[in-house]
Amino acid sequence: MKPNDLVIYNGIVMTVNPDFDIHRPGMVVIRDGGIVETGPWRPGQPPPPATQHIDAEGGIVMPGLVNTHTHLPMTLFRGLADDLPLDQWLNGHIFPAEARHINARTVAVGTRLAGAELLLGGTTCCCDGYFFADQVAEAAAALGLRGVIGQGVLDLPAPGVPDPAGNVEAAQCFVNRWQHKCPRIHPAIFCHSPYTCGGRTLVRAKAAARAAGCLFQIHVAETEAEGRRSITAHGCSPVAWLESLDIWDDRTLAVHAVWVDREDIDTLARRRVAVSHNPQSNMKLAAGVAPVPTFLDAGITVGLGTDGCASNNDLDLLREMDTAAKLHKVITGRPTVVDARQVVEMATIAGAGAIGLAAVIGSLEPGKRADIVVLRADRPHLVPVYHPASTVVYAATGADVRHVFIDGQMVVRDGLLQTADVNDILTEARLVAEEIIRDH
Amino acid sequence: MKPNDLVIYNGIVMTVNPDFDIHRPGMVVIRDGGIVETGPWRPGQPPPPATQHIDAEGGIVMPGLVNTHTHLPMTLFRGLADDLPLDQWLNGHIFPAEARHINARTVAVGTRLAGAELLLGGTTCCCDGYFFADQVAEAAAALGLRGVIGQGVLDLPAPGVPDPAGNVEAAQCFVNRWQHKCPRIHPAIFCHSPYTCGGRTLVRAKAAARAAGCLFQIHVAETEAEGRRSITAHGCSPVAWLESLDIWDDRTLAVHAVWVDREDIDTLARRRVAVSHNPQSNMKLAAGVAPVPTFLDAGITVGLGTDGCASNNDLDLLREMDTAAKLHKVITGRPTVVDARQVVEMATIAGAGAIGLAAVIGSLEPGKRADIVVLRADRPHLVPVYHPASTVVYAATGADVRHVFIDGQMVVRDGLLQTADVNDILTEARLVAEEIIRDH
Repeated sequence: MKPNDLVIYNGIVMTVNPDFDIHRPGMVVIRDGGIVETGPWRPGQPPPPATQHIDAEGGIVMPGLVNTHTHLPMTLFRGLADDLPLDQWLNGHIFPAEARHINARTVAVGTRLAGAELLLGGTTCCCDGYFFADQVAEAAAALGLRGVIGQGVLDLPAPGVPDPAGNVEAAQCFVNRWQHKCPRIHPAIFCHSPYTCGGRTLVRAKAAARAAGCLFQIHVAETEAEGRRSITAHGCSPVAWLESLDIWDDRTLAVHAVWVDREDIDTLARRRVAVSHNPQSNMKLAAGVAPVPTFLDAGITVGLGTDGCASNNDLDLLREMDTAAKLHKVITGRPTVVDARQVVEMATIAGAGAIGLAAVIGSLEPGKRADIVVLRADRPHLVPVYHPASTVVYAATGADVRHVFIDGQMVVRDGLLQTADVNDILTEARLVAEEIIRDH
Repeated sequence: MKPNDLVIYNGIVMTVNPDFDIHRPGMVVIRDGGIVETGPWRPGQPPPPATQHIDAEGGIVMPGLVNTHTHLPMTLFRGLADDLPLDQWLNGHIFPAEARHINARTVAVGTRLAGAELLLGGTTCCCDGYFFADQVAEAAAALGLRGVIGQGVLDLPAPGVPDPAGNVEAAQCFVNRWQHKCPRIHPAIFCHSPYTCGGRTLVRAKAAARAAGCLFQIHVAETEAEGRRSITAHGCSPVAWLESLDIWDDRTLAVHAVWVDREDIDTLARRRVAVSHNPQSNMKLAAGVAPVPTFLDAGITVGLGTDGCASNNDLDLLREMDTAAKLHKVITGRPTVVDARQVVEMATIAGAGAIGLAAVIGSLEPGKRADIVVLRADRPHLVPVYHPASTVVYAATGADVRHVFIDGQMVVRDGLLQTADVNDILTEARLVAEEIIRDH
């Protein structure tokens, strides 16, 4: 039998399998980049033989986090414009800055900055939507990140796609180029929204995604104003309009879904559409609060996302987990909703399901790829650990991530990125930021 | 002239003075534990002579954070019982655990765990309310923490005060013992709430606080049920009832103040009562959201607090700042309210004002004590820095704290606690946690 490549032992292993089994202390055995075994480990006993052993030293060992909604290059706009009305923020700051500063070079710089933050914070897979998707995919692949990477489509001149007439073709070509290029990169099509894409574009883009078998992402029902505009333009809600265009299926990701009524929720559930929930972005932009407890009751798969750094302003999914758990309690007045286990699932297995990767990642189970996070145990705010899911959701942040593995490869060791020089990344990002602030 | 003890230079100095001056790059000059100068620093120029120089390496330099509401020893219950209805959480878990496990020894252990977390996370001063306040004060003082430490008063048997008949006297004796014992420890009286303390106790406790010139803290209007109970018992709101007892003045801290009406807000403003706002605790327990934008419009001083670790579950004020900034935007539907500068002020100068220490701490100004935090600059999520207040509020967490000074003494250096051995603290806390979980 082939020897094991890696055994992680002496940790609190939170499998996030269907029974949410926890092995305390436990171990995870890895071979050829995949998980072959998880189970209890008896202190004092030698762990199974392997080329490499990692002592988790009592830290929580869990699946790599899945961030279901990012705009990676927008790290360059982190903190450029906060605390503003939505239209001023978008039209007065973000759109002009994108028009002036987003190009193939800056997208690569912003993606590297984002990728470093994601990996150091325990996110092993993200679902991105932006422009210059080739550069996003290349930079993500070079860092060892797993990702569903979407090329943006909208019926307006966009970075890298000056003529909207070619927007769907540009996305199609991107998908074709990347479909078998890198096993960790899954190309996708990202239609920006039902108000920036016309019906014909939406239908053609979804047809292209169906033909390629790739994920189709769309911002939908983010603000109340969007809903009103949809009623005026189409006589129905954004979700209902997309239903009339046959956009919804289990390979479409509905991002935000804040302003949805009972009928919309039934549509999403019936069509097996997953939702990407981005609580911090929705809070900061005062968009509203998505009815997540109702989604969960309806059996809708809900993943968590941070959104881009212009509206959050970080990519720390552990902080997003804390917010998600607390926000719905105060909004519903029910302290029992969206509990720690559900939030862990949203950030791992449900997130993986939302972007079509539930068979590949999202839990520590034999047959899954070895995308694994090991948290520290030696920080005061992580002590005591009565219930590991509680520690992860209500106490940990991305800074508590000690080791990160993707496909069994160590991409973060003792809090240090292994796949690139972080200082180089920070330096090139600061230089672009100087260009941005100069003419802002 | 006496030489300077310390110069911190080459940082982005966020003074939090009345003009919110930022020196980029700037320096802070310290002598005898106090700030003697802040201002710009010209790169390449030698900083002013001093015994010690600290190069902030581009990191943000800001006032030490002020956490206006803690129950330090409750770190021992961190994550013991989450996602439960309030009465089950309190009566089924927290109160029984307190009755069984809170004593002089465990209070010291829990306070040390909390103190380590506070200092490592950039909090230099807290306002605490719990029992065995002597042990809380001793442990805090030993760690070098600054604090307003309140002895708990309630008309029920409490840890260390088995007979409620002696509750006010116990608090009074504590205040007398500590009033001139340690310059960084300010004793106070903490009446638990208007529903656990009768009118006579409240009046006597407030009289004792007035006589001693110390702060009087009270949980008030935390839940809707508390408001209903007050109407039934007293025919008016909790705030109105305390007004009728003459409790309110500028040396009373109203903690939570979630369920307050216009009349209550006017009372608090007129009496110059400060509010401790604890958004994460209020969210997690589904208590509600305090009307902070209205408080600010009414000129009420609002400080931030984490509350105890049984209901948050951490003491990270930087995370609380992020939540405060985002929560009120989504609740009011206005993305401009509670902006980054206001939140920085809430966590520093306003917090200091709320607990009676605005003349001593809360800003980097000549004459103030040298309670200073230096953040890292070398983490991806902290790049770029367009506006330092935005970076602090929307991107930083306690883990980004590099150095911490209290009275000009370095209590955290490069993320390492200087005043105690963290591993010893974690070990003793884990042992107590094992006792707690054994009979939980």
